[in-house]
Amino acid sequence: MASDLKETFWNRMDKVTAGLLSADSERPIPMAPQVDRENKAIWFITAKGSAADRASQSGGEARFDVADTKAGLYAVIEGKLDHGSDEKLDEIWNAFAGAWFEDGKDDEAVELVKFTPHSAEVWATENSVAFLWEVAKANFTKQTAEGGEHGRVAF
Amino acid sequence: MASDLKETFWNRMDKVTAGLLSADSERPIPMAPQVDRENKAIWFITAKGSAADRASQSGGEARFDVADTKAGLYAVIEGKLDHGSDEKLDEIWNAFAGAWFEDGKDDEAVELVKFTPHSAEVWATENSVAFLWEVAKANFTKQTAEGGEHGRVAF
Repeated sequence: MASDLKETFWNRMDKVTAGLLSADSERPIPMAPQVDRENKAIWFITAKGSAADRASQSGGEARFDVADTKAGLYAVIEGKLDHGSDEKLDEIWNAFAGAWFEDGKDDEAVELVKFTPHSAEVWATENSVAFLWEVAKANFTKQTAEGGEHGRVAF
Repeated sequence: MASDLKETFWNRMDKVTAGLLSADSERPIPMAPQVDRENKAIWFITAKGSAADRASQSGGEARFDVADTKAGLYAVIEGKLDHGSDEKLDEIWNAFAGAWFEDGKDDEAVELVKFTPHSAEVWATENSVAFLWEVAKANFTKQTAEGGEHGRVAF
């Protein structure tokens, strides 16, 4: 069940356009995830000097929160941030970012950070937010929630 | 500008299906907001004994986070939770919840909580997540971000 949920998590993360990244004990900032399933990582393009950039310099802990009804995914993901290489930036840029960045990737403000999740709490709904209520109620009644999957994932 | 952003915030909150509520110093839980603009409040239907229910008993501080690309709204909203009345539950139930709850509102597990925001950081994008990068870059370059609005709102 937990490995199914991990599979579901990555499948749906592919459809998530943005979530909130909390890094360096600062307030959450909306950022666009670029999923790199092969490396079990999520890449973010950010600006020099941002909280994510600073946290990545020190291999800091971070949390990425997703609440995307269209993707049917709600998740609180914990992991650590590292600094990305220029080679990886080229790859990520070509695959995703070029389409929506007006500025070139050689813009001096561009920084790439790598987020490596170690654990997550995941709610994957089938087609309705009613599942979210089912989960809350299940804690109260000890019944099973229907209409989705909920659990903890270790990466 | 701040009052425009407040207007934009409420308009877009109407379209948000779910976000993450952190209450009672516990982990965030996805919940469906029912916007009550007249009372500058957001209602949540939850289950007895949930963190939101417990926080509402003590008028506790809570945070509701939104990252909804479809609605073009990203927000970190701070406020307090209170217990909702049975009369209000009838109203909310008829307006929103009846459609997606299988169980009746007389279900003994149902609890209504009222979230009253006092402040929020809001990112309202026009039609692309590129604005999120523009904001991060604006902090670095001291230029103005284009393609949306970003700021703090006091309610």
